[in-house]
Amino acid sequence: MSAKKLKTLVLSASDIEEIVRSVGIDEIMDELIEKMTIAFKTYNKDKTKIPVRSGFNYEQPQKGLIEWMPLFDKEKNQVIVKMVGYHPDNPNDFQLPTIVSTISCYDTKTGHLKGLTDGVFLTALRTGAASAMATKVMSHPESSTLGLIGCGAQSITQLHAISRVFKLKKVLYYDNDIETRESFSSRVAMLNLDIELVFTNIKEIVKDSDIITTATSINIGEGPLFDQIESKSWLHINAVGSDFPGKTELPLSFLKNSFVCPDFLAQAVVEGECQQLDASDIGPEFFEYIQNKEKYSEAVRQSSVFDSTGLPLEDQVVMEMFLAYAEKMKLGQEIGIEQVPMDAKSPYDFMYMQDAIVIKQTVPLEDLNKKVL
Amino acid sequence: MSAKKLKTLVLSASDIEEIVRSVGIDEIMDELIEKMTIAFKTYNKDKTKIPVRSGFNYEQPQKGLIEWMPLFDKEKNQVIVKMVGYHPDNPNDFQLPTIVSTISCYDTKTGHLKGLTDGVFLTALRTGAASAMATKVMSHPESSTLGLIGCGAQSITQLHAISRVFKLKKVLYYDNDIETRESFSSRVAMLNLDIELVFTNIKEIVKDSDIITTATSINIGEGPLFDQIESKSWLHINAVGSDFPGKTELPLSFLKNSFVCPDFLAQAVVEGECQQLDASDIGPEFFEYIQNKEKYSEAVRQSSVFDSTGLPLEDQVVMEMFLAYAEKMKLGQEIGIEQVPMDAKSPYDFMYMQDAIVIKQTVPLEDLNKKVL
Repeated sequence: MSAKKLKTLVLSASDIEEIVRSVGIDEIMDELIEKMTIAFKTYNKDKTKIPVRSGFNYEQPQKGLIEWMPLFDKEKNQVIVKMVGYHPDNPNDFQLPTIVSTISCYDTKTGHLKGLTDGVFLTALRTGAASAMATKVMSHPESSTLGLIGCGAQSITQLHAISRVFKLKKVLYYDNDIETRESFSSRVAMLNLDIELVFTNIKEIVKDSDIITTATSINIGEGPLFDQIESKSWLHINAVGSDFPGKTELPLSFLKNSFVCPDFLAQAVVEGECQQLDASDIGPEFFEYIQNKEKYSEAVRQSSVFDSTGLPLEDQVVMEMFLAYAEKMKLGQEIGIEQVPMDAKSPYDFMYMQDAIVIKQTVPLEDLNKKVL
Repeated sequence: MSAKKLKTLVLSASDIEEIVRSVGIDEIMDELIEKMTIAFKTYNKDKTKIPVRSGFNYEQPQKGLIEWMPLFDKEKNQVIVKMVGYHPDNPNDFQLPTIVSTISCYDTKTGHLKGLTDGVFLTALRTGAASAMATKVMSHPESSTLGLIGCGAQSITQLHAISRVFKLKKVLYYDNDIETRESFSSRVAMLNLDIELVFTNIKEIVKDSDIITTATSINIGEGPLFDQIESKSWLHINAVGSDFPGKTELPLSFLKNSFVCPDFLAQAVVEGECQQLDASDIGPEFFEYIQNKEKYSEAVRQSSVFDSTGLPLEDQVVMEMFLAYAEKMKLGQEIGIEQVPMDAKSPYDFMYMQDAIVIKQTVPLEDLNKKVL
């Protein structure tokens, strides 16, 4: 009896980095934005099941939470689960990213863990790509000024992704942490963007921007980041930071006067900006919007909000893309993690196999004796 | 700025097998039963949070389900998540175990994935150990005949574990699959048990056994495995197979007349034998029973049922035990899966690092030139 060994492709962070270096960060981002746009354009809730995420949150030993974000794709016969740790004190306390995460992919034919990858860089990348995708279809086509409120890790990929779909001339940025705002320009230098970077206050950002991304670690109950401020009539905001009950970034007045499009309605009403809204104030989910754009053509002429709490569909797209590159570039390690006995009903089989190896040894007995001696 | 790299200890199935071969299967099982007994004796729901498992179930491409079983231990600052695939056609269709599974352990200080191990062998082992633990305290102390209904992978570790806590003289076994019952005696041979193995029918098993374990893949709605049959007044049954709404193994009449003790009440009423019962028919959860044994001393004198749907506490115990052995024996691979930039707020840092490596190269320029040429 022979058993097909189950192997899990484990991509290390170094593998991920090697893929990005080899392909190029602009090329990776462009491809991801395109693939994500297609995924939303073809997303069908009957074929891809996505329950609202669940998890544990706590105040000790650090303020934080660990969540699982599952997806079941019936056509691809796979389940994707992203595990996400969110610990806002990570950067200061441990020099670690706020979001520490991995993504797993399971085969629904057998239950096998097919692949395991980083979810830190991949989350930053896909959250940027999702904002770019939404901004592209919801913003004024001649937008050229981007505002960034919150300049942590997510802001870098937000700027990068949005710069790939708009000819940005100016970036207005703000962070309440001095070190974070002071390091911002050096952290984006490697993007080689021909864009003017201006540190300013939130009021100026809201007033002068065509597009804004908010990606802060504002505390629960301490929102919004700003009160009613005059802004351009077509202002589009990617609200990335609100991801927990009670954590919101935008003022109700702005939301009420805008076309609000959540990536994932059921989740957004629990932990996104949509927490603040009644059902009648909320627009279609993003996939519905992009699949029926003509129906909502007024959105580009008014202020709009992409309420981005994170849809596992995005994790599936980015993971598949990196797994495909890994295969092409022969990166990653295949590890047999799940035990597969020779006889599936005999979990202690391997205790025999040891004997079998001895019995079937091909070293002549005299050589073996020498070795033993 | 320097970043502490996050490393995940990945144990392969071979590592797990090496640990078992090195320690010995009896020694491993004895240690696990002891550690699990302590874990249940000290289990405190305020300190260890265990939500009911959730997942996806489907009929295509195979009948099966993929579930996640999470646990949060506030004192150890860790989250454990077991991912379990249950695909009853795996052995026949793919020569794979019915249960394909992995277990992950996360640090709640940072969200980091600390360890990843097999969950196939570990589930079989811990389910056996849990039955042994329950049987030890709930069965007649002079029990000597064990009945096994269902002779797949789980039955092997059930027999093994229970043989470690009772002087068994006879095993009565039944499986409705001919190949499975015919291979049973050879599959348990390596346990070197001095026990008579008797293939018989379910009726004889129920009539003559002191202890029974049911571990079948009976279909939803097709239970029970037997109807009212006369049995020894002290018969103890470990009901291991029922793990899905509508899937039950035991007749209501037997349950009604027995002391029923679920490992995890909230889960057992949804997918265990307790589905069939009203709250008033259900005894304490096992941890409560073992923490207050004198209060329930009548249990050993009447028939009893351990309704075992699987408590993640058991997964924590078995995973910790194997991780500790792996550390001692220097087994497993440490892989940096999660991306940790040098600057936690600079996800593209690694694009610079490439430059940094070139700049900091120590090979003399002339040698480098030679290499390039």
